[in-house]
Amino acid sequence: MNILWISAHPDARSLNGFLTEKGQQYLREAGHSVTTSDLYAMGWNPVVDADSYGHDEAVRLHVATAAKAAHLEDAVAADIRTEQQKLDEADAIILQFPLWWFGMPAILKGWFDRVWHQGYAYGNPGPNGEWVGYGDGFLAGKRAMVVATLGGPEFMYGERGIHGSVDDLLFPLQHGALFYAGAEVLPPFLAFGVDRWTADDADLAAQQLQERLQTITTTQAIPFRTQSSGDYDKFVLRSEVAPEISGLSVHRVSDTGGRR
Amino acid sequence: MNILWISAHPDARSLNGFLTEKGQQYLREAGHSVTTSDLYAMGWNPVVDADSYGHDEAVRLHVATAAKAAHLEDAVAADIRTEQQKLDEADAIILQFPLWWFGMPAILKGWFDRVWHQGYAYGNPGPNGEWVGYGDGFLAGKRAMVVATLGGPEFMYGERGIHGSVDDLLFPLQHGALFYAGAEVLPPFLAFGVDRWTADDADLAAQQLQERLQTITTTQAIPFRTQSSGDYDKFVLRSEVAPEISGLSVHRVSDTGGRR
Repeated sequence: MNILWISAHPDARSLNGFLTEKGQQYLREAGHSVTTSDLYAMGWNPVVDADSYGHDEAVRLHVATAAKAAHLEDAVAADIRTEQQKLDEADAIILQFPLWWFGMPAILKGWFDRVWHQGYAYGNPGPNGEWVGYGDGFLAGKRAMVVATLGGPEFMYGERGIHGSVDDLLFPLQHGALFYAGAEVLPPFLAFGVDRWTADDADLAAQQLQERLQTITTTQAIPFRTQSSGDYDKFVLRSEVAPEISGLSVHRVSDTGGRR
Repeated sequence: MNILWISAHPDARSLNGFLTEKGQQYLREAGHSVTTSDLYAMGWNPVVDADSYGHDEAVRLHVATAAKAAHLEDAVAADIRTEQQKLDEADAIILQFPLWWFGMPAILKGWFDRVWHQGYAYGNPGPNGEWVGYGDGFLAGKRAMVVATLGGPEFMYGERGIHGSVDDLLFPLQHGALFYAGAEVLPPFLAFGVDRWTADDADLAAQQLQERLQTITTTQAIPFRTQSSGDYDKFVLRSEVAPEISGLSVHRVSDTGGRR
């Protein structure tokens, strides 16, 4: 497979840098082709502005509209186009980052803000003119996986942990961005409690990451409900679907009807 | 009150710009003092790096540790210190932004990443040496409120809407950042469906925002459970607390025991 590995840590000597190196090394040895977007090393600009979409600053900027117009006129900024070409060629994408304030570092958030714009990543009607999303879209047929490091221990990110469940914290990324765009979203690889890690802990995590990457082509995706499944009626979950569930997990299919 | 209004939209002529202007105008007329951080106008740098904390690039960067050391040595970058001084002087903060990919624009995410660092915003033990957070912290006694615009209609962000509930999408910011730091988090002011708005819609929203701001000193905060409430045992919610609830709303106190 062609794999696009996007990473977001300011120091290559970090644990994130180590996991990146070991993960990519494994994938290449396994015969995959790996392309990288090391956002810090690239000096990636994460800030959406008029220049991103060749927009005339004399005219009020409506971001989505300006982006779509630029896309149609091939006027999107060169750095954005480069990322889109990498995405187009990828069969799978890895998003690797330290969880900062319960989300992506700004440099990665801004990769989505700028690259996943209307006209390219969404806002194109399907064959019947309908709105395409959640299970179908420009990433359809591609796989996506989060690889994240978290400073705190796992129990703080559990179903009833004080930080909120990590599945829910990752929902905006995994469901709102990746699954929305049609990707098969694999369960994330999460390294908890890394603030207290030793070198041995890092070695073990690298090994576990490599084991996860062994099955990147076959691992079952998170069973988010697709927009076209019939579970939703005009974008709201039908009342008979999982009525006993509250919270974001209602958007995942479950054998038990319960949370996962 | 002293109010710090932080906004994140690339164009002052936007709906966000309009709401900012009308909101601040009302607050000043009502006798409040308003300080602003218009992140785009300031050219705010959202990318955490060694320079943020005067860190020697020859040495591996551990972000939290470097930030705390810089804080103790007064070596934090000047743009970060300026924001911290504004925070220190504020009685309330407003976070205003368009919701992009179900979260803050990168420029605002990076305001948290850089400004809310260890040593300043967290990681200082309480009087008994305990870990301070969720209901207590450097924002204790201050109020905070999100003002956000959303392109899609409200029903898509409801309890069972396909995007996930907006309360849950805002949880990393409202609970993970603001409440964690001790702020009283007011219910957000949300403008839905703005992609199709007319000038009249904007005028109505500005009026509604001003009405919300009238009660900024008295509005009841979101009843997130505090870390010190006794609801948690070692940072995990006790089994007898709201056992029937799943999802992030379990971290809110409810009269009914149910979701809100």
